[in-house]
Amino acid sequence: MTINVAVAGASGYAGSEILRLISAHPDVEIGALTGATTAGQSVAELMPHLVSLADRTIEPTTTDILAGHDVVFLGLPHGHSAEIARNLGDDVLVIDCAADFRLTDSHDWEKFYGGEHAGSWPYGLPELPGQRSKLRGANRIAVPGCFPTGATLAMLPAVVHDLVHPDLQFVSITGTSGAGKKASVGLLGSEVMGNLRAYNTAGKHRHNPEIRQNLGAYSTVPVTVSFTPVLAPLSRGILTTATAPLVAGVTAEQAYATYAEFYADEQFVSVLPGDQQPQTKSVVGANMCQLQVEVDEAAGRLVVVSAIDNLVKGTAGAAVQCMNIALGLDEAAGLTVNGVAP
Amino acid sequence: MTINVAVAGASGYAGSEILRLISAHPDVEIGALTGATTAGQSVAELMPHLVSLADRTIEPTTTDILAGHDVVFLGLPHGHSAEIARNLGDDVLVIDCAADFRLTDSHDWEKFYGGEHAGSWPYGLPELPGQRSKLRGANRIAVPGCFPTGATLAMLPAVVHDLVHPDLQFVSITGTSGAGKKASVGLLGSEVMGNLRAYNTAGKHRHNPEIRQNLGAYSTVPVTVSFTPVLAPLSRGILTTATAPLVAGVTAEQAYATYAEFYADEQFVSVLPGDQQPQTKSVVGANMCQLQVEVDEAAGRLVVVSAIDNLVKGTAGAAVQCMNIALGLDEAAGLTVNGVAP
Amino acid sequence: MTINVAVAGASGYAGSEILRLISAHPDVEIGALTGATTAGQSVAELMPHLVSLADRTIEPTTTDILAGHDVVFLGLPHGHSAEIARNLGDDVLVIDCAADFRLTDSHDWEKFYGGEHAGSWPYGLPELPGQRSKLRGANRIAVPGCFPTGATLAMLPAVVHDLVHPDLQFVSITGTSGAGKKASVGLLGSEVMGNLRAYNTAGKHRHNPEIRQNLGAYSTVPVTVSFTPVLAPLSRGILTTATAPLVAGVTAEQAYATYAEFYADEQFVSVLPGDQQPQTKSVVGANMCQLQVEVDEAAGRLVVVSAIDNLVKGTAGAAVQCMNIALGLDEAAGLTVNGVAP
Amino acid sequence: MTINVAVAGASGYAGSEILRLISAHPDVEIGALTGATTAGQSVAELMPHLVSLADRTIEPTTTDILAGHDVVFLGLPHGHSAEIARNLGDDVLVIDCAADFRLTDSHDWEKFYGGEHAGSWPYGLPELPGQRSKLRGANRIAVPGCFPTGATLAMLPAVVHDLVHPDLQFVSITGTSGAGKKASVGLLGSEVMGNLRAYNTAGKHRHNPEIRQNLGAYSTVPVTVSFTPVLAPLSRGILTTATAPLVAGVTAEQAYATYAEFYADEQFVSVLPGDQQPQTKSVVGANMCQLQVEVDEAAGRLVVVSAIDNLVKGTAGAAVQCMNIALGLDEAAGLTVNGVAP
Repeated sequence: MTINVAVAGASGYAGSEILRLISAHPDVEIGALTGATTAGQSVAELMPHLVSLADRTIEPTTTDILAGHDVVFLGLPHGHSAEIARNLGDDVLVIDCAADFRLTDSHDWEKFYGGEHAGSWPYGLPELPGQRSKLRGANRIAVPGCFPTGATLAMLPAVVHDLVHPDLQFVSITGTSGAGKKASVGLLGSEVMGNLRAYNTAGKHRHNPEIRQNLGAYSTVPVTVSFTPVLAPLSRGILTTATAPLVAGVTAEQAYATYAEFYADEQFVSVLPGDQQPQTKSVVGANMCQLQVEVDEAAGRLVVVSAIDNLVKGTAGAAVQCMNIALGLDEAAGLTVNGVAP
Repeated sequence: MTINVAVAGASGYAGSEILRLISAHPDVEIGALTGATTAGQSVAELMPHLVSLADRTIEPTTTDILAGHDVVFLGLPHGHSAEIARNLGDDVLVIDCAADFRLTDSHDWEKFYGGEHAGSWPYGLPELPGQRSKLRGANRIAVPGCFPTGATLAMLPAVVHDLVHPDLQFVSITGTSGAGKKASVGLLGSEVMGNLRAYNTAGKHRHNPEIRQNLGAYSTVPVTVSFTPVLAPLSRGILTTATAPLVAGVTAEQAYATYAEFYADEQFVSVLPGDQQPQTKSVVGANMCQLQVEVDEAAGRLVVVSAIDNLVKGTAGAAVQCMNIALGLDEAAGLTVNGVAP
Repeated sequence: MTINVAVAGASGYAGSEILRLISAHPDVEIGALTGATTAGQSVAELMPHLVSLADRTIEPTTTDILAGHDVVFLGLPHGHSAEIARNLGDDVLVIDCAADFRLTDSHDWEKFYGGEHAGSWPYGLPELPGQRSKLRGANRIAVPGCFPTGATLAMLPAVVHDLVHPDLQFVSITGTSGAGKKASVGLLGSEVMGNLRAYNTAGKHRHNPEIRQNLGAYSTVPVTVSFTPVLAPLSRGILTTATAPLVAGVTAEQAYATYAEFYADEQFVSVLPGDQQPQTKSVVGANMCQLQVEVDEAAGRLVVVSAIDNLVKGTAGAAVQCMNIALGLDEAAGLTVNGVAP
Repeated sequence: MTINVAVAGASGYAGSEILRLISAHPDVEIGALTGATTAGQSVAELMPHLVSLADRTIEPTTTDILAGHDVVFLGLPHGHSAEIARNLGDDVLVIDCAADFRLTDSHDWEKFYGGEHAGSWPYGLPELPGQRSKLRGANRIAVPGCFPTGATLAMLPAVVHDLVHPDLQFVSITGTSGAGKKASVGLLGSEVMGNLRAYNTAGKHRHNPEIRQNLGAYSTVPVTVSFTPVLAPLSRGILTTATAPLVAGVTAEQAYATYAEFYADEQFVSVLPGDQQPQTKSVVGANMCQLQVEVDEAAGRLVVVSAIDNLVKGTAGAAVQCMNIALGLDEAAGLTVNGVAP
């Protein structure tokens, strides 16, 4: 079976990472690559690392060009997906890497993104309980945000199995690629190298409601989310530290066993053995979330750390994983669990 | 007035940073530089950035060599300070950058460091209420740990003025120089560049009791500390994110005003205006702690971020600041508030 | 056809990169992984990025354990390969990533490495004219050094086709992984981040004679090599700038055309179009050498820049490519030309 | 004596580094800070590392605002200096960090910069033989380019004392701050971290003629310059490797002694002892050029490596040094020779 795939927004970081992955996918034939300002330019100029596609040219992002593919990945800025999806038939699988269709609550959308809420699509985090059945055969999928992926996977077993009171604290340290390939003084190498800074603190980041939505769905009581993103001097990777008040009587062994069992069948989540800590470098280029779970007895808290590559399990890898599930392919096709380190 | 100063452990990162600072101090004459394994080597070999001292040679760390100076800075591994201090007269000001004399509670010492507790010296964080009077004229001073400095300054006004319930969550992201100048595979450039990893998580880090001690002293109720250190790919800098449950009714404006007023007279702490976030790069080489304070209403939390250079306000700068206070010099002599950026 | 492969020195950077590549090789079954000081430890502890092999344990490097495999990759320090190879039968393909069997001239060996010269094996740079026929069916192969790979590919067409007088100047800027996974103060993250320094300058680097040997073989007149390696703050990658006096009358167009034609059939060398410059980031994780060739008319020089990943085309990728050629497999099996960027 | 100083282009990297230096200059009072697009913004917003000037506001760059100062530093894009200088009286010392007045040859200007040549001012590299006398009392000074500073100091003694045939090869590896504080996709942290790339190769870089002019002035035969700049992942620093064919009979000892003697009286140039190599990290924030000089006998070449901080000895430090000379102050006032490392 050969699947014909188009990528819109191909020259952005999400788009180009999808291209890197599907160029190694055994069942995929790469069709149209489209862009807005980059239309007319070659892959060689824009993405010199994608040597196998060097001769390809970016076309404009139009319905005509995207139509006729089996799958269309959208790596566009927020707000553009709805119209494109509307014009593509129900026989086309549309997988959206933007936020447009992630939130189910219109108030959340309006508060954090503004404008009219486009609706919601099946949410592409297959590790959520019961989620794979919603993705199988789906023709519209919303890929999760990068921070929500790392944060949700870190606290999901604890919330599902009532290990903690859901007053959840997340600090997520991220590389710069999450901010996209857009010229900006604050993201210049001169500014970010040797530097650490928090941003969109105190509840302002748009990924707040998405984290709350994901974990709230599995909690019997309302969840509270405190989320602090920090920019660090690396290209790829998100390390999330997550803590919450431990339910009385839960031991470290119980917590670890709960996590290990929860993710036992998940090939893209690894609960690390012994006292090993997740490292973002271990997951560079890999569709993998590494986790460690501990109990801080003195503080009465569960402490979980997760590591993902924001461009892979955090975006493009998740998108390909969802395509595989939706189309009934091997869920791991085109994906690797091994990182590029050191 | 010329002060004759010796530095023991001169070729370590703390020691060499003290040298960098005091080589620009108007009142200091640099005397003996001592080391253990580096004795006999030149500054030019060991610290090629200290051009003004290039011709100096490291001597062995002995009482004989250190005696006869007005001030002796100790930049030694934990456990060596007590014996040296005992052999130096009361007329010598000894400023210890190790942990040996920071903790007042023997149980804390035994639990986190092991071995016998050496006692405690005046604690070199002048920004603690009432602390300067204890440092003036002191002849023994314990320089705070780097993480406790960033964490304490971040939460001190909130604890002193009851803005929060003292169930305190700290995540501190640090550069590699805090780990010292000691060969180690885990700290190789190949391992740390492009990488983020937490370590000594879930209450295991030795700086836990020091943070608790500092803030607990100003709280009417027991404080709980959750502290997660994260290693990031930069040489210098600690960014600390601190959150705690807000006391009902405290507004963002009140919180900000409390912090601004608390530190109004402190030249080495800057509460940033508007929505500016602290950046570690802004304080590289500077004896400065930058702070921002906000309220996350949805999460019901105070959110504070602090940035320091772990080698300056976090160690060597604090040491020089304490020397200045102890000897009645201008507190800012030899120190700058301006960072080396970009 | 399934090939049973062992890797000696599996936990070093060369060894672990071979593992990363062959774990995705369609024809390879991974057999014994061996090490010296790491024997008894798990892959999960030593190489947490190799999730697919996490459960494997490192065994001691002995002939007994390595025997019985179809292919043995050696990722050992210099000086250990000869004895191991002697004890493995002629039916075992031994591919050595150390320098032991690269040099054909005993004087060069003694001068640059010292000790007795072990001899020479077929040299694993298939892009050398006529070299593939020597590698097909070979049972012993010496993988080139990382610097010699980048330098040789940069100047080979110019030397073969007499574009330059062979007074060759190379400056190669390298990431830290080329120095291996060995604790050392000079390679600490604190020392290398934000830093540039040359080393083994003025003809002292051991790769000098290898570069001279490679290019001298295709020159009708003696070649002279000036080679300056520089350590830069990144993990992976070598950028080589190569210049030499242009033969009178050679134009930029001729030079470019010569290079393009020379490498036209090489899938792992790419002469970049237009004015694009090679970037090391474009080849991270890829078995690829990117090149640009220009003429500096005012200086009368050919200017060539090459980029490789020192651990892939510079070591492990070359090793796998050679295995593929030796065994008659698809030369590209287990290799990718697409880099992991950004 | 108090000198009133204005800085035009104060929020750029050159301008802000001048501010950092003169804020510690004992004789300077900082007057107007001006900018184009940043006029009206505060130092706190634009340059949060300059805490001592946080309350200052950027004014528009006009003659009215700049007039009335003793010294005006210009940190503007090329092409703006001539008009401003014309409107400032001869009693104002104007020190220009742009290229406008560096070149003496109009053809060079037109070829490399285009447009009309504005003329030339005394060239601010005091280490050139005889140059200090031209700078003393000058009221117009052109600060050298960053690459020409590192390259010229590396080869100057060799050219002056005929150690080499002046067919000079320079490869200069630079941090990103040399490219300025201007939004650009190619300079994003995501693009530069983990990356090395050459640019303006093969004689295209504008600093080519300046290097040739500097060294040609001291050569009895025409000099040829091959110059290759490489961008590396660090903020500050230029490491230059310089080689040239050795004049027959010159020994390593002679070469070293020539350099050591040549720079013996220069406090801002250090010829390193023994086998120490310059490191850019050693000179971060320092007005210092570190050098090493060797002979590669096999290649018949002199090999010199120099390290500077492009923003200090390469720009702002040189500017302050020139001001000190011009006004008869201590040449080292406001400058340090000690770098901020690690």
